[in-house]
Amino acid sequence: MHHLSERNIIEAIARQSRGGPPELIKGIGDDCAVVRKAGGLVDLWTTDALVQGVHFDLAWHPPRLLGRKAASVNISDIGAMGGRPRFALLCLGLPAACSRQLLDELMAGFLEVLTMHDMVLVGGDTVFAGERLMLSVTVCGEMEERHVCYRAAARPDDLIWVSGCLGDAACGLALCRQGLRAEEAYLSLCRAHLDPQPQARLGRLLAQSGLIHAMMDISDGLATDLAHICKASGVGAEIMAPDVPLSPELQKTAPALQLAPLELALQGGEDYQLVFTAPADSSAPLQDLCRGAGRDIACVGRITAGEGVMLCREGERQDITFRGYEHTF
Amino acid sequence: MHHLSERNIIEAIARQSRGGPPELIKGIGDDCAVVRKAGGLVDLWTTDALVQGVHFDLAWHPPRLLGRKAASVNISDIGAMGGRPRFALLCLGLPAACSRQLLDELMAGFLEVLTMHDMVLVGGDTVFAGERLMLSVTVCGEMEERHVCYRAAARPDDLIWVSGCLGDAACGLALCRQGLRAEEAYLSLCRAHLDPQPQARLGRLLAQSGLIHAMMDISDGLATDLAHICKASGVGAEIMAPDVPLSPELQKTAPALQLAPLELALQGGEDYQLVFTAPADSSAPLQDLCRGAGRDIACVGRITAGEGVMLCREGERQDITFRGYEHTF
Repeated sequence: MHHLSERNIIEAIARQSRGGPPELIKGIGDDCAVVRKAGGLVDLWTTDALVQGVHFDLAWHPPRLLGRKAASVNISDIGAMGGRPRFALLCLGLPAACSRQLLDELMAGFLEVLTMHDMVLVGGDTVFAGERLMLSVTVCGEMEERHVCYRAAARPDDLIWVSGCLGDAACGLALCRQGLRAEEAYLSLCRAHLDPQPQARLGRLLAQSGLIHAMMDISDGLATDLAHICKASGVGAEIMAPDVPLSPELQKTAPALQLAPLELALQGGEDYQLVFTAPADSSAPLQDLCRGAGRDIACVGRITAGEGVMLCREGERQDITFRGYEHTF
Repeated sequence: MHHLSERNIIEAIARQSRGGPPELIKGIGDDCAVVRKAGGLVDLWTTDALVQGVHFDLAWHPPRLLGRKAASVNISDIGAMGGRPRFALLCLGLPAACSRQLLDELMAGFLEVLTMHDMVLVGGDTVFAGERLMLSVTVCGEMEERHVCYRAAARPDDLIWVSGCLGDAACGLALCRQGLRAEEAYLSLCRAHLDPQPQARLGRLLAQSGLIHAMMDISDGLATDLAHICKASGVGAEIMAPDVPLSPELQKTAPALQLAPLELALQGGEDYQLVFTAPADSSAPLQDLCRGAGRDIACVGRITAGEGVMLCREGERQDITFRGYEHTF
């Protein structure tokens, strides 16, 4: 399964499953499904699976951090709509060779992140799954309907913002593959891959501020995730290469691995930062808001009336629409 | 992973994830999690995974029926609390060799059952999963809080009832394994394994009637599922062997396969019928209710003040507690 065909499959499934009751505000096609309930609130639902040898390698992924990551990537989707995660369900596919210790560490990590976010595990299934460990997680969140941030809400002339730095996770994966996980200098990069921090609190803050339009999390690289926003909103995007936030560690380490920092940032995936759009006159209050919350955000470009995602670098424009990370290795 | 250790794992996880907000009425440990919401209603959540080579074999399982089954087994859990299934999320783990046609048939079957139950697919994830096809499904349902039927509600002297006939699915699996799926005489037995019919409407009817106490669905065989009810309720159960409902097809076919019909019924699993308990004075109205709905139910024994599940046969008592189906083949 290549990335493009995964996307095609999801689009085909979405076409087949249109409709639904009036309380279903959004089905397939955003970070979460959105279902209206009483009191001006909505439920948010999302599901994401991690498969051994596809999304993680136990050779370098400590089980506790893997358990944390399985929770975090789903919490990230709730945060990307602006919601508060509440409950999780976990389907655990266990290989024959799975030890009790691995399982205990995995669950400890998973539950640790749930506790951090005031969430509870409410159900699950444990099955024998052959050769590969597999974690399939569903998370339910909640928020006020009027604050939900959809992918489809970007408008021409919006500025495009991202939280944190991009590319660290992809560089961390490259370091892990080369057996460099334990090196002191690479800890923060490796940690970005092994134990990403979902920006759920920031997402909630941004949504409640009323300052922003579209939002989603960056799981497949900015080039792909921004392309989702553009497609859903019927707009285009221009990214200014020099404005993409790169950590000092990435800028120092990537070249030594023969990797281009900017490419990792745009196409690397798994950063689980947020990308969001906002009208230009929101910039000052947005920066104040995030500074107050101790979060860095950076303006990386603007939404256009065109289509696709263009990278502007040294006077050239390059189409990078959907040039994101493929979940294979 | 053997069945017993699966159960141990779930119990260990449940111990680690106690607590939660006051609106969480029931977490891990029943057919569904139960969360209170406005208007006297609760949400019900359940998740169940099917793994190729563990829960199904594509050599004899037509993809459309497999898609149907993945939906049905989750809908069965919602029905077992008395709820109305509403929404589904699907994590699809696809092997490298998965064809577009297989995928289309699988999804057609899955969505067909959702439509039959007025449900909508609201989200999912599609991942490459190595060697095995895997379907991990989460279903959310809804019902009135005062009608929820828990496992823990059985009381001494309740009568024990089951819907439909038991053992057909296990016999059907044996027939499929022997390549006899296409034989006209075996169609209904094979269908019970390949395309089980969840008793969600009957479950809802029973729950709303106020006539019953505990209820759950029979996924692992009556011996195991009734043991769950007994353990949760702090009671015992006696099953009268001659009263266990066996279909004419099962009684005719099982002996020819060197299988005992009663063992398949008690330990075979995957029938997705309902087992429920009710005070003796509910018997007549219960039978009227089910007759009116065109559903057969049979009284198979009674709840005792003891513990464990006893099988009473020809004057002998045999302990069959948790002697159910192991999800392996």
